Amino acid sequence: MTPKGKIEVGILGATGMVGQNFIKFLQNHPWFQVKWLGASDRSAGKRYSEATAWRLDGEMPEAVRDIVVEECRPGNAPRLVFSAMDASVATEIERAFAEAGHFVVSNSKNHRMEPDVPLLIPEVNPDHLQLAPVQRRNRGWRGLIVTNPNCTTVVLTMALAALRPFGIKRVIMTSMQAISGAGYPGVAGMDINANVIPFIGGEEEKVETEPLKILGRFTGETVEPLPARISAHCNRVPVVDGHTETVSVELASKPTAEELIAAFRAFRSVPQERGLPSAPPQPLIYMEQHDRPQPRRDVERERGMSVFVGRLRPCPVLDWKFVAMGHNTVRGAAGAAVLNAELMHSEGLLET
Amino acid sequence: MTPKGKIEVGILGATGMVGQNFIKFLQNHPWFQVKWLGASDRSAGKRYSEATAWRLDGEMPEAVRDIVVEECRPGNAPRLVFSAMDASVATEIERAFAEAGHFVVSNSKNHRMEPDVPLLIPEVNPDHLQLAPVQRRNRGWRGLIVTNPNCTTVVLTMALAALRPFGIKRVIMTSMQAISGAGYPGVAGMDINANVIPFIGGEEEKVETEPLKILGRFTGETVEPLPARISAHCNRVPVVDGHTETVSVELASKPTAEELIAAFRAFRSVPQERGLPSAPPQPLIYMEQHDRPQPRRDVERERGMSVFVGRLRPCPVLDWKFVAMGHNTVRGAAGAAVLNAELMHSEGLLET
Amino acid sequence: MTPKGKIEVGILGATGMVGQNFIKFLQNHPWFQVKWLGASDRSAGKRYSEATAWRLDGEMPEAVRDIVVEECRPGNAPRLVFSAMDASVATEIERAFAEAGHFVVSNSKNHRMEPDVPLLIPEVNPDHLQLAPVQRRNRGWRGLIVTNPNCTTVVLTMALAALRPFGIKRVIMTSMQAISGAGYPGVAGMDINANVIPFIGGEEEKVETEPLKILGRFTGETVEPLPARISAHCNRVPVVDGHTETVSVELASKPTAEELIAAFRAFRSVPQERGLPSAPPQPLIYMEQHDRPQPRRDVERERGMSVFVGRLRPCPVLDWKFVAMGHNTVRGAAGAAVLNAELMHSEGLLET
Amino acid sequence: MTPKGKIEVGILGATGMVGQNFIKFLQNHPWFQVKWLGASDRSAGKRYSEATAWRLDGEMPEAVRDIVVEECRPGNAPRLVFSAMDASVATEIERAFAEAGHFVVSNSKNHRMEPDVPLLIPEVNPDHLQLAPVQRRNRGWRGLIVTNPNCTTVVLTMALAALRPFGIKRVIMTSMQAISGAGYPGVAGMDINANVIPFIGGEEEKVETEPLKILGRFTGETVEPLPARISAHCNRVPVVDGHTETVSVELASKPTAEELIAAFRAFRSVPQERGLPSAPPQPLIYMEQHDRPQPRRDVERERGMSVFVGRLRPCPVLDWKFVAMGHNTVRGAAGAAVLNAELMHSEGLLET
Repeated sequence: MTPKGKIEVGILGATGMVGQNFIKFLQNHPWFQVKWLGASDRSAGKRYSEATAWRLDGEMPEAVRDIVVEECRPGNAPRLVFSAMDASVATEIERAFAEAGHFVVSNSKNHRMEPDVPLLIPEVNPDHLQLAPVQRRNRGWRGLIVTNPNCTTVVLTMALAALRPFGIKRVIMTSMQAISGAGYPGVAGMDINANVIPFIGGEEEKVETEPLKILGRFTGETVEPLPARISAHCNRVPVVDGHTETVSVELASKPTAEELIAAFRAFRSVPQERGLPSAPPQPLIYMEQHDRPQPRRDVERERGMSVFVGRLRPCPVLDWKFVAMGHNTVRGAAGAAVLNAELMHSEGLLET
Repeated sequence: MTPKGKIEVGILGATGMVGQNFIKFLQNHPWFQVKWLGASDRSAGKRYSEATAWRLDGEMPEAVRDIVVEECRPGNAPRLVFSAMDASVATEIERAFAEAGHFVVSNSKNHRMEPDVPLLIPEVNPDHLQLAPVQRRNRGWRGLIVTNPNCTTVVLTMALAALRPFGIKRVIMTSMQAISGAGYPGVAGMDINANVIPFIGGEEEKVETEPLKILGRFTGETVEPLPARISAHCNRVPVVDGHTETVSVELASKPTAEELIAAFRAFRSVPQERGLPSAPPQPLIYMEQHDRPQPRRDVERERGMSVFVGRLRPCPVLDWKFVAMGHNTVRGAAGAAVLNAELMHSEGLLET
Repeated sequence: MTPKGKIEVGILGATGMVGQNFIKFLQNHPWFQVKWLGASDRSAGKRYSEATAWRLDGEMPEAVRDIVVEECRPGNAPRLVFSAMDASVATEIERAFAEAGHFVVSNSKNHRMEPDVPLLIPEVNPDHLQLAPVQRRNRGWRGLIVTNPNCTTVVLTMALAALRPFGIKRVIMTSMQAISGAGYPGVAGMDINANVIPFIGGEEEKVETEPLKILGRFTGETVEPLPARISAHCNRVPVVDGHTETVSVELASKPTAEELIAAFRAFRSVPQERGLPSAPPQPLIYMEQHDRPQPRRDVERERGMSVFVGRLRPCPVLDWKFVAMGHNTVRGAAGAAVLNAELMHSEGLLET
Repeated sequence: MTPKGKIEVGILGATGMVGQNFIKFLQNHPWFQVKWLGASDRSAGKRYSEATAWRLDGEMPEAVRDIVVEECRPGNAPRLVFSAMDASVATEIERAFAEAGHFVVSNSKNHRMEPDVPLLIPEVNPDHLQLAPVQRRNRGWRGLIVTNPNCTTVVLTMALAALRPFGIKRVIMTSMQAISGAGYPGVAGMDINANVIPFIGGEEEKVETEPLKILGRFTGETVEPLPARISAHCNRVPVVDGHTETVSVELASKPTAEELIAAFRAFRSVPQERGLPSAPPQPLIYMEQHDRPQPRRDVERERGMSVFVGRLRPCPVLDWKFVAMGHNTVRGAAGAAVLNAELMHSEGLLET
């Protein structure tokens, strides 16, 4: 605990764009305080303000400027660490921390689909946290790895979660994804200015599999994926923040439009019930306007933690179609992981 | 015939964006020469250069600068007129010209879905031009109205036409449409800069119906629409020219990827056989690169008359998915209409 | 006074973009509460939510949704009205309100350069408010018209104000202005997407004259303009909010770079001393980074009320050059006017 | 000579963006044919199509796809080589080629300001090619290095060249530069989308010095720089191609606006007189429209080889102000170098 009674946290991969998003999102967090920053050897030993080219809007928060960056090795790090590691190095480092007893709340893709690793959206599958003892038993770890999904997955899966009672069978989604999802330098200006790039490496595979695990059933030992099929078309568009997704969905039952909209609006879950600090009051906000949600206009609302839905209408091929939009670096990354840690804390898990 | 032996043509709605696109596309046309320009009362009597704020790249072609704009009434207009009329006035004016004996080759939506009006893509349904005598008989007209489809429809339908042999059953398409498709001033900069607008008025309805007529069967009297279903999600993105479309399609037969790509590449039709001046050598260009086609990089190729296809891969929900992209103001508007007129001329229709 | 003890205010031209910006900026204002909304005949009688297509980010504030819009005539309006009127109608309407005893705090250009009308930036020339009695005497009004400058002028003039002690002689400025400065629909997407428009109607004239009045000396009866010369090149660029300006300046004395940067940083004035609610703690923020300020990254900082300065370096032609950037619809429009009203209130003027 | 009687040319740094621009510009060149491609060790030995990720619009020209890339060492290279080398390696490699007898026509900045290296714009200072014998004598080389200026310099200097008769004294310029000027990946999409970056490394220094050498007087032994002063503010804006520059200029004599516009329009020089293949008929095109030139609308005109000028008007601080715009990767890079080589060929220099 810090002097203010907050839980000290560390960030693995603190100097990159995702790491910066963690630092920004954790500013003034009521429970967590960033005390430790890990990065590559190249940065270790430098003050964070020297090691980091700050890429986000505004300026680097004062509170982290003078923290001396360390290598990504367990030891000095607090028990709770958020991982913003690049996929190329995340596997070994995250395992090393978990083995050493750390709670690794990771945004990296590396462990997401492993059977004993929770892939969480706290509003959708908080019960999957029960994979924790399975993971520890399997691996003989004192710590734990918990993951959040890919940014495009989060937006889609939150919208679909509200439709779960109607029986999700088949989904076709096209994404129009913001530049900030690609890290830094990420997409070249020459490539994306006034253009669409109809390809994002590895993205479609994630969006076609991760939601099925998240929407799946915890059996006591493992997660049975939802028996549904998803097809994803992923595109990059010249937008700064906010992934927009068009979705066609086939349902087992035949609800009316009113019932579906009511389901979007009524959707609440554990984070709302427990009042977790980063939980949006309303996880899904259905907009009546004929041309919303729009990323530039809606992405900053609700601190970036709600998913916005609109344009529900019948689909001539599957049953219904609609638009969903959410903040890819907040709800789809740093905010997602922090909410996972809040859920863990609310379960008393961080004290074990 | 003009001194050079060219066919004189007129343009209805010559001062608007679509009219300007006709003028640009018809520059140096080997068969047609713009001799007459019609617009609203407000413009009539002025020289074209005075009446028109030129919105296209480069400068207004010299050949039209001094043509005195007339009202949109038959009389002085040449027999062949291209219609770039706004939908709010096209119905009556196009009828008046057809009744007065003119060939009205229209880009307007107004008459597209009427049963006796050809809705043509010359590579796809040149035989639908046989609706001409039906239309004349029905309406007692000496002239004729022939239409081209909506810009988003053209791109989708040309790609689908190559797949017709495999039996098109269901299609889900999401478009990412260029700003130039909305006319002038069209979409406000405030609305589209760094944004996605997930709605285009009336567009989805067109894309869900027009392709079925175009891909339908001419029975001798009318067109039986293709018995397939299409679902469209239409979006505006900050791109200047070129509509990009993600397409999932269900087919009756089960071709391989190689067969489908071969079908895209082999696709040729009447305009290519006859060497129509605006016909692209290859109507569909399949690109091997993993991230193409892209609107900014590919839209100007082949004078904007080919449709570019890429990323063919299995669809987990329907059978196959791919990306298609074409030039909305050329292949999707002015070029489409000019190619229609070229087809008509090659059939000897303009001489009747 | 409202139940909460706030001063009731009205907005002239409430349905337009500038009017919407006033409503957004005045949300939760500690002194002022919007109670009356005036607009054109077409809107009068409708609820604000019916009369207005909300163009700003997020959604229309609840507090104004049900206010019934009235015509722009004095009568029911509160004593203090903010004018967001279009220039085409502002002259007569603002005069009518002032004549009827209202305090008209106007963002319109119409009265700015009249000799007895204060053209205010509260940090720069708060003493020019002493034109109030002159204006009333001249015109026989009980009320008053007070204006704020053009958005590009504000950014330039605030930066120059800090240099006043060194003797401003000549200034050359090039602006790169955001789209939001043009109202709605304003600049067409077709015109500005991936483009620069090197012209903004009337802008250069304003930027070359308004700062001289603002930086001028109040003589007791009138304002003697600063005897300096300004040359402005105004351009529109595809940025949402934030005008960026490159400035070369010739000074009478020969300060060092350190003295100039210190002058930017030390710049404070009456609004800061009095703690006016919308006054930024630091009116000018000098940034050390070699590539800042940048509009997208810095415009939302300090609630849009500070002007950001950077890149001070010697100018081979005049003496010094630098970059300045500020929020055009906040510091350059709605926020400017509200700060003017706060200054007036702090002078006890609103009680007269 | 090639079978077609063309002069064989090589390209140093052929795989980068500038190299690609050379290949694109030299397609179908009537005098020169690309026969040799040099790049880094990493690319050497591969076919060009394997070694190169093509970044330009459209597809890689067929003619170069199968050329096997070599290391950048003299030997197999043709006598005439265009250098698109990165500045970090250009100095040594260009010298090695010149020493070995090659004509190195370079776009790199490295040798531009050396006293015995011609820094050429063929329309402006063709006589500076007379530095060739000086350079050879100084350095004992059989070959030669000839350079073209920085892209921003070209646009400014061509416009100023027309004003030379009036006596250029002082110039203040602000550039709004396209993304393509930064190479690939160049500017990150995250940095430039909907933003302005008010800094381009090293650019202002070039623009403040290179024009003075180009506009300088060849004395028979060296070039005396123009005794004028230039101040540059360089900015990056979200535009694909085309640098736009606002210019204020002080002149020794006092011409009228008509005289200045006439001077822009009458400006012709050696490349036009000799009909060099890449010479634009009119090097400077003065546009009457109040809001032109604009990069997106005008940059592709005249094959990118003309500079467009507009908005000439009095400057309240210096004498006159105007806007200039030109194609940074054509007139400002590849096209500039090719025109230099054409000038050299027309002088018989390539045969020596």
